[in-house]
Amino acid sequence: MKVRVGIIGATGYTAYEAIRLLLRHPHAEVTAVTSRQDEGLPIAAVHPQLTRLLDLKLEPLEVDSFAERCDVAFCCLPHGASAETVKQLREVNCKVIDFSADFRLSRVAEYETWYGVQHPWPELVGQVAYGLPELFADQIKDADLIANPGCYPTSAIMPLAPLLKAGAIQSGDIIVDSKSGVSGAGRTPKLGTLYCEANESIAPYAIGAHRHQPEMNDIIHRFSGSSTDILFTPHLTPMDRGILSTIYVRPNGVDADAVREIWQSAYRDSPFVRIVDHIPSTKHVAGTNFVDLAVRTAGNRLVVVAAIDNLIKGASGAAVQNLNCIYGWDQTLGLL
Amino acid sequence: MKVRVGIIGATGYTAYEAIRLLLRHPHAEVTAVTSRQDEGLPIAAVHPQLTRLLDLKLEPLEVDSFAERCDVAFCCLPHGASAETVKQLREVNCKVIDFSADFRLSRVAEYETWYGVQHPWPELVGQVAYGLPELFADQIKDADLIANPGCYPTSAIMPLAPLLKAGAIQSGDIIVDSKSGVSGAGRTPKLGTLYCEANESIAPYAIGAHRHQPEMNDIIHRFSGSSTDILFTPHLTPMDRGILSTIYVRPNGVDADAVREIWQSAYRDSPFVRIVDHIPSTKHVAGTNFVDLAVRTAGNRLVVVAAIDNLIKGASGAAVQNLNCIYGWDQTLGLL
Amino acid sequence: MKVRVGIIGATGYTAYEAIRLLLRHPHAEVTAVTSRQDEGLPIAAVHPQLTRLLDLKLEPLEVDSFAERCDVAFCCLPHGASAETVKQLREVNCKVIDFSADFRLSRVAEYETWYGVQHPWPELVGQVAYGLPELFADQIKDADLIANPGCYPTSAIMPLAPLLKAGAIQSGDIIVDSKSGVSGAGRTPKLGTLYCEANESIAPYAIGAHRHQPEMNDIIHRFSGSSTDILFTPHLTPMDRGILSTIYVRPNGVDADAVREIWQSAYRDSPFVRIVDHIPSTKHVAGTNFVDLAVRTAGNRLVVVAAIDNLIKGASGAAVQNLNCIYGWDQTLGLL
Amino acid sequence: MKVRVGIIGATGYTAYEAIRLLLRHPHAEVTAVTSRQDEGLPIAAVHPQLTRLLDLKLEPLEVDSFAERCDVAFCCLPHGASAETVKQLREVNCKVIDFSADFRLSRVAEYETWYGVQHPWPELVGQVAYGLPELFADQIKDADLIANPGCYPTSAIMPLAPLLKAGAIQSGDIIVDSKSGVSGAGRTPKLGTLYCEANESIAPYAIGAHRHQPEMNDIIHRFSGSSTDILFTPHLTPMDRGILSTIYVRPNGVDADAVREIWQSAYRDSPFVRIVDHIPSTKHVAGTNFVDLAVRTAGNRLVVVAAIDNLIKGASGAAVQNLNCIYGWDQTLGLL
Repeated sequence: MKVRVGIIGATGYTAYEAIRLLLRHPHAEVTAVTSRQDEGLPIAAVHPQLTRLLDLKLEPLEVDSFAERCDVAFCCLPHGASAETVKQLREVNCKVIDFSADFRLSRVAEYETWYGVQHPWPELVGQVAYGLPELFADQIKDADLIANPGCYPTSAIMPLAPLLKAGAIQSGDIIVDSKSGVSGAGRTPKLGTLYCEANESIAPYAIGAHRHQPEMNDIIHRFSGSSTDILFTPHLTPMDRGILSTIYVRPNGVDADAVREIWQSAYRDSPFVRIVDHIPSTKHVAGTNFVDLAVRTAGNRLVVVAAIDNLIKGASGAAVQNLNCIYGWDQTLGLL
Repeated sequence: MKVRVGIIGATGYTAYEAIRLLLRHPHAEVTAVTSRQDEGLPIAAVHPQLTRLLDLKLEPLEVDSFAERCDVAFCCLPHGASAETVKQLREVNCKVIDFSADFRLSRVAEYETWYGVQHPWPELVGQVAYGLPELFADQIKDADLIANPGCYPTSAIMPLAPLLKAGAIQSGDIIVDSKSGVSGAGRTPKLGTLYCEANESIAPYAIGAHRHQPEMNDIIHRFSGSSTDILFTPHLTPMDRGILSTIYVRPNGVDADAVREIWQSAYRDSPFVRIVDHIPSTKHVAGTNFVDLAVRTAGNRLVVVAAIDNLIKGASGAAVQNLNCIYGWDQTLGLL
Repeated sequence: MKVRVGIIGATGYTAYEAIRLLLRHPHAEVTAVTSRQDEGLPIAAVHPQLTRLLDLKLEPLEVDSFAERCDVAFCCLPHGASAETVKQLREVNCKVIDFSADFRLSRVAEYETWYGVQHPWPELVGQVAYGLPELFADQIKDADLIANPGCYPTSAIMPLAPLLKAGAIQSGDIIVDSKSGVSGAGRTPKLGTLYCEANESIAPYAIGAHRHQPEMNDIIHRFSGSSTDILFTPHLTPMDRGILSTIYVRPNGVDADAVREIWQSAYRDSPFVRIVDHIPSTKHVAGTNFVDLAVRTAGNRLVVVAAIDNLIKGASGAAVQNLNCIYGWDQTLGLL
Repeated sequence: MKVRVGIIGATGYTAYEAIRLLLRHPHAEVTAVTSRQDEGLPIAAVHPQLTRLLDLKLEPLEVDSFAERCDVAFCCLPHGASAETVKQLREVNCKVIDFSADFRLSRVAEYETWYGVQHPWPELVGQVAYGLPELFADQIKDADLIANPGCYPTSAIMPLAPLLKAGAIQSGDIIVDSKSGVSGAGRTPKLGTLYCEANESIAPYAIGAHRHQPEMNDIIHRFSGSSTDILFTPHLTPMDRGILSTIYVRPNGVDADAVREIWQSAYRDSPFVRIVDHIPSTKHVAGTNFVDLAVRTAGNRLVVVAAIDNLIKGASGAAVQNLNCIYGWDQTLGLL
């Protein structure tokens, strides 16, 4: 019998992507989709790509009824709202993979500073597994609640964590210059994500002030031991999907080959990490759960390049990978 | 002294394009910009491209004050609202170039059927010059109010009118298959014009039911003598701007050369019509006021191809061209 | 044991797409990839997306050696060259799915007129199964050689064939206005497919003179009984992939509902045909093997809309679907 | 009488853009266009946008005949070839604005290292005015030969030069992370600039090894006094045009306001520099000669953002601006 997954907040891009991946999964199935605003509509009315593929109607979330029909919830609600719902779902024993930022940070104070809301379930903050199986497999295995990582942090933490753990780079001088496709900004109509605003345009936003900066620093800190101070600049890039992070670091006497060896060793058993000699592009990973990593020497710095699909390894693919880990399945099920 | 132009509803794409063109105009200047929703903001706050180029604040429209500072209004309001405002502006003797559809059709009944509102100024319907100087120069010259044409109709009427007038094609069997850039859908945030919806996507909409279909038929009828029945299918195309219309007609014993001769003769004195041998692309006319026309024989049909920039010849360029005509200036001022 | 597939001419977009689909196939595997120009390179050097997914080197085609390692060849060579190779492969009993046009038409004379080359294997012309399983299942089953359909023809034949067979539309008045993503033009560097030429541009090409027009007429004729005269206009559209065909037909007394019923009946057992109420977009079918079909009434015409992914249902997905048919597997293997 | 400009190597994107700008120029006209490969074709055959706008045929360059008909040459040839031609043109007293890199660097040895060719006219290296009128007006005025700056260097030097001159930032720790539209890669068909390769893709290239890195360092050095060591990473971005440079620097005790004041003071009389409070996007400057500059504080760094149109301020607009300077005209002629 298949594991039953319900998607909460099913009208956005990450929700669609999660459904699409789960439709290919041999041991999981989607059994409920919720939405407050589009209640009653068939899922294919909001995602026409799902015509003939998934025959479910959007329903308002009622936790008890939902938990009867779902073993696991993929919770795609905005921060704040998400933690509230996660709490209710956990009380009726539904496992949860939370796409929001609500349980990613270690400290309540930092969460409340950056997200500007009171945390609805502060006692759990710092106790939840961060859903990067390549780095936190032990905590994810057997977890009932997982904080699915942010898209930008995934692209930065994956290359940086092993290097900091090995002491190969300086923790105090790291610049992450990231370029993201527009889907990262969500599906709610806004001026800035209109076609004619985003097309033929690239620009940074929230320079040194994006909420994913503290997430990067928080997670990275667990590997560096010492305090880290990543400077993070995201850029809105005219493409549907993909994140390309160009990362500038100072080596502690290592060269590019040594970096590749550290990665090889750290990710020996990680099927989704590809350490490549060519320079990665978002196109190489589009539609996949891969993280492509490369490194170049430039003057007295190393330049690390990481590419992911923001909707897959940066969101829904990671969620399915976490699902696989929770149930002890092969990490790649539904993802190749 | 320069002619003073005010832009009513100045936050959209056509308004921006009009401002940009007028900034290059030797005899005109922009002296007021209005917006209800963004009142008080500098125009460069909503159109950052205008930084250092135009130092005006958005103001709510007060007709008397506006008319003191503007000789001509470019009215970029939605249909219905526009006619109401046009009426007030005419009462204080401000000339108006109306970007809406409110005065384009000949009959009130048809307007009210297609636009679903009562016309605020029915006695003027059918009396207003249709702003295609290539075809209606006599009516535009000395006009105080001009109905600026729809973007799609411009791309269809320009090639078809001379052919129908010459009896070269059958009026009862015309298909206009048009492809438009996303800017044609306006700047108000909507799901369908989000980058991630419109990008990598082409689709028709309002098949045989778009409001520009009766506009085409109405104007074309003035040339064909007999009733016309254009079938019009617009398509949303993943690009900022441009309209490419592929038009299928039945010749009355003429070939492609004869069509080109009819065009050459009709547009001998029209600086913005280019009859080309190659196949036009929207890219060839982007940023210009040109209409590129070509024709090919295919079986027992002729295939006519017309390309314009929907924001320029399809909207703001036409408005400036009309302004030039009203004031007796060379048609090309500000437009080359 | 898996069926072994070799890809001949493996450096282009359709070849990549075929490999990607076969990697997901439960009963097939890719065992050889050939290329004259890139001989010796790992496949991942020309398709970086395949890094870690397929560990094969590009080899020059030697038929005997190839046939020892491959049960089936996907032949992605250009027309003319393809038939020559197909002949050799058949002589050593390798099954072939031919992506070229060499065996699609019924008559040698027509082939030679449109393709401008002498046919290398004329006695087989007209004897080869046309690879649309939805329409030619009987001929495909047990075939050793299949002519994989052209991308544009697939988008036109799928909606038109059942309607012509049912006598629901007139065969002499059909216009197919198609819009294709740039990948349809192949991966060989040419001016017209450079990013800066194709981006922000839409234009028709080969109006009434494209080689897919006789292919459409040839196949359609088998259903209409009478002679057909499709007028076909392809357009290069600024997107990677997808074909949207807008088809104008004259009904023989049927309405849109009747059309949908004819399709429903004809494609009752076809898992990849979706008859939809909304208007299809290329985005709805991108990355899938679906054909989305819709119809609208417009005046005295019907407007049919068909959307496919040109690289999948229009090429490599069709090839895999044909493979499934040849081996008697479920049509959807590897394709959902 | 107008100044007569000839375009050498007129088939590329920068040449087209130069022609388009000169067509609007009140005191200049294009009197010759050369091309070896397309000799004899009308210019509109290679740039269809110029239909009816410029009636010249492409000719092979014959220096004597060219110089009789042209007062100034815009030389758009590749490096190496360009210096050779520049030498001949100067010998017949034709003024030259050289779009290539041949006369940008100060030292022959560095040129030969980075460009891999022997310099054809080494005695002039280091003697030629670098064509940024905002910084080198004195050298440009009355010059007969100008080295038109590289596109990336313009985006980096403009913000950095005044800051280094003022000692406001550290010269030894500067990272320039640039994102360029595809037109920067030229119009010669290559795999990497095909639509289907560049679309939906962002990737860095030539990390720390691009030829514009020594150009930046060379020019910047003239302002910093001390040696500079810029680390430069260009990225190919899916858009036609525009460069966005995100620049990471270490302040010497200055804050963002101080940076803006230094820029204001340095560029007080520079009509094309806009120091903005919002974050610049390439879209804000597309089609213009503007450089938009902004700065933000982030931790202990300053993040500078510069946006230009790579084909205009990054190439052809700069050339026209230099032309204006040479002839003592207002810098903005033809450029607003």
